Amino acid sequence: MPDAAVATDASATARPRVAVFGAGGYAGALCARLIDRHPTFELGAVTARSDVGRMLDDVYPHHRVNRPLEELDLDRHAGVEAAIVAYPHGAAAELVAALRERGVRVIDLSADFRLRDAAVYGEWYRDHPAPELIDGAVYGLPELYRERLAGADLVANPGCFPTAAILGLAPLARAGLVADIVVDAKTGVSGAGRGASDKTHFVTVDENMNPYSVPRHRHTPEIEQELAALGARRPITFTAHLVPLDQGELLSCYVTTSEPLAERDARALYAEAYGEEPFVEVVERPPGVKDVRETNMCRLSVHCDARTGRVLVFAAIDNLWKGTASQAIQNLNLMFGRPEGEGIEPR
Amino acid sequence: MPDAAVATDASATARPRVAVFGAGGYAGALCARLIDRHPTFELGAVTARSDVGRMLDDVYPHHRVNRPLEELDLDRHAGVEAAIVAYPHGAAAELVAALRERGVRVIDLSADFRLRDAAVYGEWYRDHPAPELIDGAVYGLPELYRERLAGADLVANPGCFPTAAILGLAPLARAGLVADIVVDAKTGVSGAGRGASDKTHFVTVDENMNPYSVPRHRHTPEIEQELAALGARRPITFTAHLVPLDQGELLSCYVTTSEPLAERDARALYAEAYGEEPFVEVVERPPGVKDVRETNMCRLSVHCDARTGRVLVFAAIDNLWKGTASQAIQNLNLMFGRPEGEGIEPR
Amino acid sequence: MPDAAVATDASATARPRVAVFGAGGYAGALCARLIDRHPTFELGAVTARSDVGRMLDDVYPHHRVNRPLEELDLDRHAGVEAAIVAYPHGAAAELVAALRERGVRVIDLSADFRLRDAAVYGEWYRDHPAPELIDGAVYGLPELYRERLAGADLVANPGCFPTAAILGLAPLARAGLVADIVVDAKTGVSGAGRGASDKTHFVTVDENMNPYSVPRHRHTPEIEQELAALGARRPITFTAHLVPLDQGELLSCYVTTSEPLAERDARALYAEAYGEEPFVEVVERPPGVKDVRETNMCRLSVHCDARTGRVLVFAAIDNLWKGTASQAIQNLNLMFGRPEGEGIEPR
Amino acid sequence: MPDAAVATDASATARPRVAVFGAGGYAGALCARLIDRHPTFELGAVTARSDVGRMLDDVYPHHRVNRPLEELDLDRHAGVEAAIVAYPHGAAAELVAALRERGVRVIDLSADFRLRDAAVYGEWYRDHPAPELIDGAVYGLPELYRERLAGADLVANPGCFPTAAILGLAPLARAGLVADIVVDAKTGVSGAGRGASDKTHFVTVDENMNPYSVPRHRHTPEIEQELAALGARRPITFTAHLVPLDQGELLSCYVTTSEPLAERDARALYAEAYGEEPFVEVVERPPGVKDVRETNMCRLSVHCDARTGRVLVFAAIDNLWKGTASQAIQNLNLMFGRPEGEGIEPR
Repeated sequence: MPDAAVATDASATARPRVAVFGAGGYAGALCARLIDRHPTFELGAVTARSDVGRMLDDVYPHHRVNRPLEELDLDRHAGVEAAIVAYPHGAAAELVAALRERGVRVIDLSADFRLRDAAVYGEWYRDHPAPELIDGAVYGLPELYRERLAGADLVANPGCFPTAAILGLAPLARAGLVADIVVDAKTGVSGAGRGASDKTHFVTVDENMNPYSVPRHRHTPEIEQELAALGARRPITFTAHLVPLDQGELLSCYVTTSEPLAERDARALYAEAYGEEPFVEVVERPPGVKDVRETNMCRLSVHCDARTGRVLVFAAIDNLWKGTASQAIQNLNLMFGRPEGEGIEPR
Repeated sequence: MPDAAVATDASATARPRVAVFGAGGYAGALCARLIDRHPTFELGAVTARSDVGRMLDDVYPHHRVNRPLEELDLDRHAGVEAAIVAYPHGAAAELVAALRERGVRVIDLSADFRLRDAAVYGEWYRDHPAPELIDGAVYGLPELYRERLAGADLVANPGCFPTAAILGLAPLARAGLVADIVVDAKTGVSGAGRGASDKTHFVTVDENMNPYSVPRHRHTPEIEQELAALGARRPITFTAHLVPLDQGELLSCYVTTSEPLAERDARALYAEAYGEEPFVEVVERPPGVKDVRETNMCRLSVHCDARTGRVLVFAAIDNLWKGTASQAIQNLNLMFGRPEGEGIEPR
Repeated sequence: MPDAAVATDASATARPRVAVFGAGGYAGALCARLIDRHPTFELGAVTARSDVGRMLDDVYPHHRVNRPLEELDLDRHAGVEAAIVAYPHGAAAELVAALRERGVRVIDLSADFRLRDAAVYGEWYRDHPAPELIDGAVYGLPELYRERLAGADLVANPGCFPTAAILGLAPLARAGLVADIVVDAKTGVSGAGRGASDKTHFVTVDENMNPYSVPRHRHTPEIEQELAALGARRPITFTAHLVPLDQGELLSCYVTTSEPLAERDARALYAEAYGEEPFVEVVERPPGVKDVRETNMCRLSVHCDARTGRVLVFAAIDNLWKGTASQAIQNLNLMFGRPEGEGIEPR
Repeated sequence: MPDAAVATDASATARPRVAVFGAGGYAGALCARLIDRHPTFELGAVTARSDVGRMLDDVYPHHRVNRPLEELDLDRHAGVEAAIVAYPHGAAAELVAALRERGVRVIDLSADFRLRDAAVYGEWYRDHPAPELIDGAVYGLPELYRERLAGADLVANPGCFPTAAILGLAPLARAGLVADIVVDAKTGVSGAGRGASDKTHFVTVDENMNPYSVPRHRHTPEIEQELAALGARRPITFTAHLVPLDQGELLSCYVTTSEPLAERDARALYAEAYGEEPFVEVVERPPGVKDVRETNMCRLSVHCDARTGRVLVFAAIDNLWKGTASQAIQNLNLMFGRPEGEGIEPR
């Protein structure tokens, strides 16, 4: 019962205050809830660009966070030790820079500091608004960068698809076995954000499914960057599909290996890679997204197709939890030397 | 290809041209499709306020109507004999008035000409924009007003809830058996229209259900008016709920009768009322909305609760079909002396 | 942070072992999970009638309870201090009797001990299998019977619809204001249980909704019994509907009052009744079931329809949580003198 | 009432009677409906193995086919000219053989006569029950075998996934451009059939998605056979996923080409292949399954990923319509020399 022990300790000392900027969106609001219930951290300000003045409880009753959404005002929010920035790509960098100047430690949920090469960012997004901060940012995937995250002041929280894709493919990449990769991703609608449009209208999505951002989804270079760092330097084919459910993301990864790989050996590779990981489950049958709903878990299965020699990896996460908000808390725990799973253990 | 053959025959004589004004919304777009495939009518202009210039096919691929959405321009659309107006309440009346001045026969999908008393309209909506037209309007529920619809030049197409409620309660009202009525209505999300908002966002609606417009839903006076005309002059309790499905509407009607009524007698009443009606089905087990999806059918069941003496009536329709668009075509058929079910028979 | 303190205390002393009999179904499995994570209780045996030998984890991956489903064998399960019985109506009573004989404290999720009058049970279910135990059973609605639950050895966990209906109507019943009641209930599919049939097949339920068990739903006498105990002795009209979602239940209650009641006064009545209740929320706008998903909360709103004088009460719960499993834990906490919300607080 | 007019003409000459054997399942029931409304054919017997004696109307209210489900009795059903056999794989062959002996023309919905090589059938299913009939069977994909279908007495109706996959990949296969293929298929739950089980229970499927039959889905050899016939002789990687919707199937095909292919050229290839096809739509943006719901349409889009050189093809069909039942009617029309789209045109 780690929470119990920690809670006792924490209440003796001062609890670090953590703000959430951009709590009007799905990811930010969930971060606010997870911090509000966290045994160690205290929820500092919660801000939003629309809905200012409403209670977070009123916008998201199920989160039960009884706090007003405020307008951003860095002077007023000065006392926070850390902040989670849940702003859109491009808009986040400026706020991150201002926060870093004031010494606030930051977890940025946007893509702004995920790509280490500003030129690549420029190619997929726009001119980078704060390239000088890139080098200091740590990519917030604890399973790869646990040690560096411990001391980080700026964490780039991974995209939801890259989280699942990299966890799903890392063991093969690290073993030098990757010759070619196709990733077919399917996501629930919360992944499209709270913005109301034809695309997110219930009537459009219900009983429907369709590919989107074809053939250049912005999560592609992020996956490529991390797989390259592990030794698999190849462009990948990545396609995302919208399916009629709320939270949940399933990635089907089709890997052509550089040499034949038996299913038993593939599974051993994954067992070894993730045997000690608290938030990665390697299972025998393909996972469903319901298995990981509202958890910080990534659930994986590995299969070999004897006829084609291809390796199939299926990875399921909750896009709002391990794909975004609970992974941010996992990173926050690491940054502050707390037990990694504090406040985000399955319940 | 029977449709083709028929179409050729029909075009030998002149086919009446029917425009749809406001075809960007769900109801208008479906009207356009039903007219486009109709053996007798020809689709005149289709207009929209947004999406002008796009093909209707592009906005609603599943309707397969290969026509551009035009801006409203009555001079340009002069040649149409009839028009379906799918404008919001309040905005419709003005266009209806302009069309009537030009001699165009109109089916208005809005509430603007449904209430015969401008004061009641004023109480539930706003000051009536064209009260002088009210008297000439026929309430477009064929099962009640079939004969008057034959010669009508202005038809007020009923609201979706009133359609189901009035069909469900008319036999009891006409028999003088109604002492008190509670109607609990449940609707799919297309009933909320195409407007994108928090309320219609997939993430809000999915795995959710909730009452809305409590306790004054605007369909209430419309139901009361028609039941009063049949002899049941009492205020009713009407509540609507949003449920996570696309098309479909289920009304559960709880009737306190003025005198005891056996289930057998209740069923006989309904069998007699609807035995000859082509689009009303009286069944033994409570209907589901899937039974009537994409049809012009209203499916009813009647039950008596021996313990309380209450009569329960369940009525299922497709809110976009019998609740709006296919009922408009049913009215159009009547107005033009066509077989009532032409183009809207179950298939 | 009550959980923290409690956990520390509990681990010092012996933790009471609680078995779940019938953990193959939705409700039993959730009970097993809530006990498995509970800071005070320890999960004893989990049994099932089918799926014996499978891990609970394998049947319900998202519960993450790593325990085998065993066959029932009271001798082997002797060491448990309490048991949750999740058997079907009729089948439960025998097991409950056997457990009580061995001194095991029982929470029974079935209807077998909810009705205090064996004749009423006989009328709605069958001959009562263990009428001698009825008198000793306490109806497990903490908001009504908190004190008696503290010492109870046999708790009849309420039905899901009665939980919401009684909480929704108790303040009016207690105030002597009820003249007549119609309850229109809507439930997600988990309420129909895990049994696979045409009725629970995805294709049947999806995009559908329909009334069921009309006009004699078995939860009716349970609601009537408890409202009568509060002073409202009248038969009620109760109808249930199946809607296409997983977990969640919404009750729309239409109350004819015995004397006029202003909305302000109605709300005051509810505020007073539930102001101190940890698991009842009285809110202004009608609740949605998503507001309470996976929580022990009942969320209520009260409205008056000035036109008809009727009072409308909407009550939302999660049928598997407050409607069944988490309410069982709430009762278990009370039986063992633990804080009422231990292990079931919103998170 | 064009259908009526046509029907009258047709009945002047004798209308061929067509039986549906196995009308208790989703596909068979829909075939019965399409034949019942068809202007040329007359619905002969409808049989089922369970539900015998019930009206088809009662089992499937929305199909509105007022016919009893009978037990199979070939002597009694002797007068039919053709039959659609909707039996499970393996069970169909025997009935097909008996029907052919009596001279009844057959469309078989099972896999029993799709594979031309009995050994391949044996490898993926079981020993073939009637190998002597294989040679006489025509694979019922009109876009490939239109001419041969005209005179066919035994048509093997394609699997739903092969229908979409082959239509999606044929132009590339025929052009000799295929080096490697990955097909990621997503299907609604009706594809799993009417059998009630944990897998098709609403609670299992709702808010979930997961791969199944990994890595050996039985539709694989069927796709390979037809692509090989067009020139692409390679094993393919095929994976199916269950998603939470009723009807609809989306295939995402990832093709490594044998030589570089520009998007413009790829699109020209498809435009040429399908320009005259009445039931294949080539569109620019990726299709959604709602675009083709309850139609006989296959909707395709083709894209090139400049970074990887891969060609992406997306294909959407309704698994019960073009994927099964309406395609069977399309084949029936061809067999009897009727216009190919009779009775299955979009409406």
